[in-house]
Amino acid sequence: MDAIAVKRGKTRPERIDIERPEPDEGEVLVRTLRVGIDGTDFEVLSGSHGEFPEGSDYQILGHEAVGVVESSNGTALNEGEIVVPTVRRPANTSSRFFENNEPDMAPPGEYVERGIAGAHGYMAEYFTTPASFLVPIPEPLADVGFLVEPISNAEKALELAQRSRSTFEWQDSAGLVLGNGPLGLLTLAMLADRCERTYCLGRRERPDPTIDIIEELGATYVNSRQTAVDEIPDVHEPMDLVFEATGHAKHAFSTVEALGANGVGVLLGIPEDWEFTVNGGALHRQLVLQNKALLGSVNSNVRHYKRARNTLAEYPDWFLASIMTTQCSVSEFADAFEESPETIKSYIEFST
Amino acid sequence: MDAIAVKRGKTRPERIDIERPEPDEGEVLVRTLRVGIDGTDFEVLSGSHGEFPEGSDYQILGHEAVGVVESSNGTALNEGEIVVPTVRRPANTSSRFFENNEPDMAPPGEYVERGIAGAHGYMAEYFTTPASFLVPIPEPLADVGFLVEPISNAEKALELAQRSRSTFEWQDSAGLVLGNGPLGLLTLAMLADRCERTYCLGRRERPDPTIDIIEELGATYVNSRQTAVDEIPDVHEPMDLVFEATGHAKHAFSTVEALGANGVGVLLGIPEDWEFTVNGGALHRQLVLQNKALLGSVNSNVRHYKRARNTLAEYPDWFLASIMTTQCSVSEFADAFEESPETIKSYIEFST
Repeated sequence: MDAIAVKRGKTRPERIDIERPEPDEGEVLVRTLRVGIDGTDFEVLSGSHGEFPEGSDYQILGHEAVGVVESSNGTALNEGEIVVPTVRRPANTSSRFFENNEPDMAPPGEYVERGIAGAHGYMAEYFTTPASFLVPIPEPLADVGFLVEPISNAEKALELAQRSRSTFEWQDSAGLVLGNGPLGLLTLAMLADRCERTYCLGRRERPDPTIDIIEELGATYVNSRQTAVDEIPDVHEPMDLVFEATGHAKHAFSTVEALGANGVGVLLGIPEDWEFTVNGGALHRQLVLQNKALLGSVNSNVRHYKRARNTLAEYPDWFLASIMTTQCSVSEFADAFEESPETIKSYIEFST
Repeated sequence: MDAIAVKRGKTRPERIDIERPEPDEGEVLVRTLRVGIDGTDFEVLSGSHGEFPEGSDYQILGHEAVGVVESSNGTALNEGEIVVPTVRRPANTSSRFFENNEPDMAPPGEYVERGIAGAHGYMAEYFTTPASFLVPIPEPLADVGFLVEPISNAEKALELAQRSRSTFEWQDSAGLVLGNGPLGLLTLAMLADRCERTYCLGRRERPDPTIDIIEELGATYVNSRQTAVDEIPDVHEPMDLVFEATGHAKHAFSTVEALGANGVGVLLGIPEDWEFTVNGGALHRQLVLQNKALLGSVNSNVRHYKRARNTLAEYPDWFLASIMTTQCSVSEFADAFEESPETIKSYIEFST
C-alpha cells in the first residue's frame, strides 16, 4: 500500500510502498480517509523534533487523521464507522497515565507519538491501532474529522486554563490567540463562542486570507509588527485568556504582560533553546500581585477528542471551507508540504 | 491608646498615642492581643511597597493580628470571642470580588490593605472592622492566632496549585519550599502532612535554628549556596509542587526547571524590577512538553483563613514554640523590628 514517509538522513517526504498492516488482537484495521499536515510534521521532517521508530529506516508521517473502520476485528467498534485516532501510545514501560486514560500527562519516556516520535504515523492507506485509541465521530464530519486532533489540543489547554481559574468566579470576557496558523484559527473559532471579545495576533499584512477569517469570526486582528504582545493591554484591553500557538519563546513571557488581573496564559508552541533578557522581577511581581497563571499544555486525551468532536460539529461551514485550503491526492503528496501565503491547512486524501 | 506607626518621610516605627476608635454600624471593636511582623512590614517601613492611608501623616503598621471582641456592636459575633482580621478592604469603588467574598482576587485599585496600602493596620490596642472581615478561632489558639494570616496565604496558593492540577490524577509526592523565613517554615509545616517528601531551600549555613526546624519537620534542607534551584532535580528529585517564598525573581524561572512533569510552582514573593538573561526557549518548551504550571498568588480570603485555622490547630507545639522566637511588649516594640540570625518570628503583645 502507499505511505508517505521520511527516510533516515532525509528531510523531504517520499511515497513508499509497504505491506498493509494486520491488526493484532484488540486492534482495529482502519482505512485512512484524510490526514492533515501541521507544523510538527515540518519539525519531524527537519529532524528538530521527534525520532524514528526503533529499528526503522523510515518514519511514516502524519498524526492528524480520520478513517473508516475496515475491520473491527472483534472490538466494540463497527465496520464502516468513522474514527479519529489519538497520537500517544505506551512506550515499553508501565505507565499509570495510560492506565488512567491520561496519556497526555505522561512524562517523556513513557510514551511514543504516532507520526512524531518513535512510532509510525497515519499517512498510509491503512493503519492499525487498539480500539481504545479510536474516537468515533458522526459520518457527516468524515471530511473534516482530521481537524479533531488539533482542536483536541486546544480543548485540553482550555480545560487546564479554566480549571486553574476555578477557585473563584473567573470571567473570560477577553480572549487572545497568539498565532494565525491553523491551530491559532481553530482555537480562535473555539473561543469565539466563549469569550465576549476575541483577538488574534499574527505578523501578516493585508490583504491576507487569515485576516479575513479572523474578522469574519468577529475577532480583532492584531498585527504584531504594529502592536507587540505586551502593548496589547494599552492598545486594546488586558486579556483574561491567552493561547500561545506560535512557538515563539518571547511570547511566553510577554503573555504575562498581555494578561489582566486573574488572567491565564496557556502555552502550546514548542520552541528551541533561545537566551534573551527579561525583566524577571516585573514578570514575577505581576504574576503574584495580579494572581496570573502560565500553563504549558501538550497533547490531549480521549476526553478532549470527544469535546473537539462536538466543537468541530458547531463550526460554521464557511469557516471550515476557508481553512481547508489545500487538498492533495496521494500522488500529489509533495504539494501538500508546500507552504504559501494562501495555504492555511493542507491535507492528503487517501480514500473517500 | 498606644499604636505603632510609621510617619510620613520616616523609615522607622514609632509609638504614637491616638484615640481609641469607635465602631460604626456593622463594625466590631476588637481588643488587640498580638500582632506579628513579616517582610511586608519592612517593605512598608522602607516605602518600597504599599502607601499611606489617604490624608494621614502616619500609617499604623501590622496586618497579622489576633484579638478579642470587646464590643460586638449588634453583630453576630460574641463579646470575648477570639478573632483574626483579614487584610483587604474595599476601596471607594464597587467590586464584584468583595461582593463574592473573593477580595484576594480583586485587581489593583479595587482594594486597600490594612497595615500595608491605603489603610491603617492592627498594631494598636484596639481596632474596628466590619464583622464579615473577622474569622473566629478557638480560644486555645489565641496566643498563636496571628499566624493565621500568613498560613492563609499558603492555603490560598495551595488551593490554586491543586485546582490547576485537578484535570488529572496528580501526585504531589515531592514538595519544595523556596525560603526558610517564617512564611517558608509555616508552608513547609503545612506540606509536611501532604507530601511524602519535602524540601526547604535557604542560604544559611549550619548551625542554624531554621535548619533544625526543617529537619525536625522531616524535610531535607537544601543550601542554595551548594545546590542551585535548577540543580535540585539532579541532586534530589524533580518536584511536583514548589512554593516560592523568597521574592528572589530568578527563583520564579528556575522553579520551572525544579519541577518534574505535571508539576506546579506557586509564586508568593514580590520582587522589584530586575533584568536578567534566561533561556526562554528552554523554559517555554519545558512548560509545554511537560505540562508544567506557574501560578502567582497574593492575599487570601475568609475560606483560606478558616482552612488556616484548622492547619494551625494541627501544627505541633514544638514547631510553633520554635518559630515564635521574639515576643515584645508595646514598650519594647523597637526590638520586634530588629533582625538577627536567631529571630524567626517577632510579634508585639498588646494585651492578654
